[in-house]
Amino acid sequence: MKKSLGAQTLVFPTPTWIVGTYGPDGRPNIMTAAWGGICCSDPPCVAVSLRKATYTYGSLMARRAFTLSVPSESQVKEADHCGLVSGRDVDKFAGTGFTPVRSELVDAPYAAEFPLVLECHVVQVFELGLHTQFVGQIMDVKAEEIVLGEGAVPEIKKIRPIIFSPGNRVYYGVGNSLGHAFAIGKEI
Amino acid sequence: MKKSLGAQTLVFPTPTWIVGTYGPDGRPNIMTAAWGGICCSDPPCVAVSLRKATYTYGSLMARRAFTLSVPSESQVKEADHCGLVSGRDVDKFAGTGFTPVRSELVDAPYAAEFPLVLECHVVQVFELGLHTQFVGQIMDVKAEEIVLGEGAVPEIKKIRPIIFSPGNRVYYGVGNSLGHAFAIGKEI
Repeated sequence: MKKSLGAQTLVFPTPTWIVGTYGPDGRPNIMTAAWGGICCSDPPCVAVSLRKATYTYGSLMARRAFTLSVPSESQVKEADHCGLVSGRDVDKFAGTGFTPVRSELVDAPYAAEFPLVLECHVVQVFELGLHTQFVGQIMDVKAEEIVLGEGAVPEIKKIRPIIFSPGNRVYYGVGNSLGHAFAIGKEI
Repeated sequence: MKKSLGAQTLVFPTPTWIVGTYGPDGRPNIMTAAWGGICCSDPPCVAVSLRKATYTYGSLMARRAFTLSVPSESQVKEADHCGLVSGRDVDKFAGTGFTPVRSELVDAPYAAEFPLVLECHVVQVFELGLHTQFVGQIMDVKAEEIVLGEGAVPEIKKIRPIIFSPGNRVYYGVGNSLGHAFAIGKEI
């Protein structure tokens, strides 16, 4: 018998990602986002939802481009910091010590230090309520060599992404392998 | 210096969720989905993307309702199985031994055995390409008592959700706590 918890955004896992944009003055900015996910395989697209009140919202509407970076466990303080303060008030690259890099594919910056980055053009904007969903077409994925495994495939255990747990609002790392997808279910 | 991997759906983490729907004949069905995420806090909404070719796509278009369940590590074989076979061909409740439960809030079923379930009305359908994105308004979240912690908040370490890693297509568990969100970044 399940207990009703009410209509809440409680689901697991959710990601911890960093959205990079240029502000109206051309300054690079990064913010943390947990509301998002892959939304299409072809064309490859990722969705991220932001409140209108965020500084990044205006940048996204104006430039129609963003980067989405996957921070590593060791960057959890910096990742959290980028969700605590606004690019309106502070320079988060200065605060974190991260290095802004201009994407050659889209009109948006990313931090060199994150192990993996998606460069995205905004192809759809959906108003959903408190949040606006931006669908970004992934123009390229770039990764540090150190997180690549066999066949130049990025490996989650090398990236060590950060999982955000809504409810108690705690960050977690990735644990042990549970088996190969599209394979272990064949045993049933 | 980052290495270019091309335009691919490579991002980390992605979830492993189970979408429950009724087919045209009223039979309950469940399928596995990794392309999705929370997309709005108010109203609380979750997005999930499916290919038109799936059996669930037709069910979602017809009934405009679904459940989204979070399977636990111990259910990884069943979760994988539900992504390997189609509800057109097989009864996945029979195959997994799971128990179908009719939602009292939306016109969709879920498996009693999953520790957490979101009951959703489809409020938006966005055609994005190979995938169609369904935005579901979360009408309720229901959880097994055993996964609840202090204040009846579901705890990720009790749910033990499954993380899907694209690229090498491996499932992973959740690892250690990295600290409190909206808190540890204050040290910067």
